Amino acid sequence: DVSFDPKEHQHLRYNPLRDSWVLVSAHRMKRPWAGQVEKPPEEHIPRYDPKNPLCPGNTRANGKVNPDYDSTFLFENDFPALQPDAPDPGVDQHPLFQTRAARGICKVMCFHPWSDVTLPLMKKQEVVKVVDKWVEILEELGATYPWVQIFENKGAMMGCSNPHPHCQVWASNFLPNEPALSDRCQRNYFEKHGEPLLLEYARQEAERKDRVVVENFAWLAVVPYWATWPYQTLLLPRRHVLRLTDLTTEEREGLADIMKQLLTKYDNLFEVSFPYSMGWHGAPTGPHLKEDNSHWQLHAHYYPPLLRSATVKKFMVGYEMLAQEQRDLTPEQVTQMFPQKFIYF
Amino acid sequence: DVSFDPKEHQHLRYNPLRDSWVLVSAHRMKRPWAGQVEKPPEEHIPRYDPKNPLCPGNTRANGKVNPDYDSTFLFENDFPALQPDAPDPGVDQHPLFQTRAARGICKVMCFHPWSDVTLPLMKKQEVVKVVDKWVEILEELGATYPWVQIFENKGAMMGCSNPHPHCQVWASNFLPNEPALSDRCQRNYFEKHGEPLLLEYARQEAERKDRVVVENFAWLAVVPYWATWPYQTLLLPRRHVLRLTDLTTEEREGLADIMKQLLTKYDNLFEVSFPYSMGWHGAPTGPHLKEDNSHWQLHAHYYPPLLRSATVKKFMVGYEMLAQEQRDLTPEQVTQMFPQKFIYF
Ligand SMILES: O=P(O)(O)O[C@H]1O[C@H](CO)[C@@H](O)[C@H](O)[C@H]1O
Ligand SMILES: O=P(O)(O)O[C@H]1O[C@H](CO)[C@@H](O)[C@H](O)[C@H]1O
Repeated sequence: DVSFDPKEHQHLRYNPLRDSWVLVSAHRMKRPWAGQVEKPPEEHIPRYDPKNPLCPGNTRANGKVNPDYDSTFLFENDFPALQPDAPDPGVDQHPLFQTRAARGICKVMCFHPWSDVTLPLMKKQEVVKVVDKWVEILEELGATYPWVQIFENKGAMMGCSNPHPHCQVWASNFLPNEPALSDRCQRNYFEKHGEPLLLEYARQEAERKDRVVVENFAWLAVVPYWATWPYQTLLLPRRHVLRLTDLTTEEREGLADIMKQLLTKYDNLFEVSFPYSMGWHGAPTGPHLKEDNSHWQLHAHYYPPLLRSATVKKFMVGYEMLAQEQRDLTPEQVTQMFPQKFIYF
Repeated sequence: DVSFDPKEHQHLRYNPLRDSWVLVSAHRMKRPWAGQVEKPPEEHIPRYDPKNPLCPGNTRANGKVNPDYDSTFLFENDFPALQPDAPDPGVDQHPLFQTRAARGICKVMCFHPWSDVTLPLMKKQEVVKVVDKWVEILEELGATYPWVQIFENKGAMMGCSNPHPHCQVWASNFLPNEPALSDRCQRNYFEKHGEPLLLEYARQEAERKDRVVVENFAWLAVVPYWATWPYQTLLLPRRHVLRLTDLTTEEREGLADIMKQLLTKYDNLFEVSFPYSMGWHGAPTGPHLKEDNSHWQLHAHYYPPLLRSATVKKFMVGYEMLAQEQRDLTPEQVTQMFPQKFIYF
């Protein structure tokens, strides 16, 4: 009898945050790749481009002029997917044609006045400014909106159409699918085990060590046991924290520090400005601020598209869309691939 | 007060097959696109390429030689994500580190001996051969495996690395996430309303007409009310049919006919060989063959990536990955865009 080797033998792993399974078939990396190759990320981005609507002092699509900002800069998205005042769609009586009102607000936040710096290239104190601004936005929009999604699409491969370092904030009058699912899963775990799922998970990973990419006194970044994207990571506080607004000053500094380290490691992986989508999940806000949300633990997901190199991504297509997500490397293999050497710092 | 216009006002629509919501923000198509542009699909594919491992008579990666086939051709995937004999991963006692055995088989099926024909370019009788082969495969693998996923990734944009017309079949000893979710949703609907969800849905759409792309005596192709991908379609039989194996000879012919029509319309949309991932969902098989699966209705999903043109796709990234799927055109707008004129036929 052959003994089980996760690198050679396909198996399923359970994702407790989404109550679903991922198929891990690491032996599949052996197959040659003759498929689509992406354009490598752009390299020579000018620090200031008079035509870029995100640069300080420039005019945006709607005619508004940006201030001469020298740190972060927040403004309303000129093409928002959510607007505060959309009329109610009304009701169709049929259960298969259900509609609901959606209201909200979309903002954009520039991280820095220069177009040619990304988060890992910024000074730690500049990243702290970004974290502080996230807290401020959540405080403000979370006062009324039940969900405030802070996310960053980085790189053209992730649908980002402007190289200037920025993130987005979409606040909505509804709890979207993903946080609703995560809320349900964390609540069930808490009811069954009497402690927050992700607090226990961080404790386990800190002990087991096989999936830890980087850690500091307050934070831990791991390739989750159930990762679907090849280089997916999960950023977790060590302490029980419900929302970004609950972080201490030290924890915010610690967050800037670990983000700089994690993103530097990403850039070193294929020696390229690493594309990804990332975003924050924390306890819901608005009307939920008054509820008991002890089952929640703050965390950020990083979903990078690359698989083999700077130009070959993982395609989540046929089988993944119709049946189940599948990955071609084990999370433990991937953890080992994150480089120790640093280009930046 | 402004009255609700789905093209101008964002709203949510309920997906009853996945128990989730999609954000429809059609006014967003107005924003300019300065982001990533894809390579247009390859145009001059040779009918026979001596180096293509899928062509008749050629040698594959594992040294096996293809027969000189003149219709469809089925063989085992040389780099299978699922193998029949993987050892059991064993058990970790911790609820956050759950693993399960995964066993199965992966096959590839060429649709035609020529590399330069796609399904819409084939003769109707050649497409019937493809349908017949699907039935045969499901009959054979479904005898023991609980789930047999038949799917086609078409085009380099969808991770397809070989232009020769083909699909894949992955059969597994487990019910994957997507069919498990669909099974649950269809079962709940059936218990509540006493009829199959998708049978009633097809009846409704055939009457309402706003989302019908093409129909014939036995089949209906619609842009579902809850579509997430811009040009997503759902192919449905008019009669209650559990699985591909239950189709009559006339229904198989009707299927070949509607597939040719639907795919010709896709190709006409942007005058390009339209990329997509598609696949079949029907009642589970193997041990489930003995159960009552009346809540199921056979259907195929088509998920095409394009949004604006042959080279600008929809990016399902930040907000979509972290919060909720979002679309930039209403399903009714999209239905109108499918061209009436035909290049082929
Ligand atoms: O099996 P192929 O064609 O080599 O690979 C393609 O389809 C698979 C199944 O959807 C995916 O897992 C791969 O990412 C994709 O590139
Ligand atoms: O808002 P942007 O940057 O124009 O657009 C990008 O992010 C959005 C939110 O994830 C997506 O809906 C778009 O498909 C993507 O291109």
